[in-house]
Amino acid sequence: MPIETRRFVTDSEKVNGRSPWALEEWFCRSDVVPNQDLLMVRVTIEPGRCHAFHTHPNREEILYVLSGRAEQWVGREHRTIGSGEMAFVPKGEVHGTYNVSKEPLVFLAILAPSGAPEPALVDVSKQEPWVGLRKGMPICT
Amino acid sequence: MPIETRRFVTDSEKVNGRSPWALEEWFCRSDVVPNQDLLMVRVTIEPGRCHAFHTHPNREEILYVLSGRAEQWVGREHRTIGSGEMAFVPKGEVHGTYNVSKEPLVFLAILAPSGAPEPALVDVSKQEPWVGLRKGMPICT
Repeated sequence: MPIETRRFVTDSEKVNGRSPWALEEWFCRSDVVPNQDLLMVRVTIEPGRCHAFHTHPNREEILYVLSGRAEQWVGREHRTIGSGEMAFVPKGEVHGTYNVSKEPLVFLAILAPSGAPEPALVDVSKQEPWVGLRKGMPICT
Repeated sequence: MPIETRRFVTDSEKVNGRSPWALEEWFCRSDVVPNQDLLMVRVTIEPGRCHAFHTHPNREEILYVLSGRAEQWVGREHRTIGSGEMAFVPKGEVHGTYNVSKEPLVFLAILAPSGAPEPALVDVSKQEPWVGLRKGMPICT
């Protein structure tokens, strides 16, 4: 079925990829459905791994946990969130997701607007104050 | 905590409501977080109930099933989708969600842009061709 007329996304239609930190299963992106506004990816981060501090300069983001537990940072605030809990990341705000648990962490990352200008992502994990913010906490790579 | 600085939404922060067809738990709306682009609500539809054919004239929508099974329509196409499966609804396209199973259906409804003009929803379930489209299928109210 051509993407333009696709209305359902199951295991057969989603587009899988790997980032250095996670398995990414894209449900809503222009190579899956004819989206205009929304992006959605299901992300699996293994124990001891993380998506370190970064920003999306031109997109707002929701992270909704499906299973496992996330040490989730938004700005200088962090919480451990589990299934059915959410983090909200305003456009451009620094955030990071660390799996310090013993189970895989699975969450939905939802972003808008889909047509925002580049860059999609800026890594700030080597910059102050973010580089020192998790000092003393379990190391994730 | 004031909404402007809220970054995490759990059972304590979400805003619950009831529509005629469902329990709605709002995770991303202007009375929960300082959103600019995204809306998200977790919806529970009991067996035998439905959100009958309708449109969102000015918003794109994703429906992502968390548990249970949905007889999901988008335009004249329908599929039964379950946990981890998604429907994509382009802006203005007719869609409907029917729970013909014996278990509650729980899904995330994600919409953008949040600041779209009214109306948020137009019911077309009494209009042709939609009124006759489920003829012979289990009745949901």
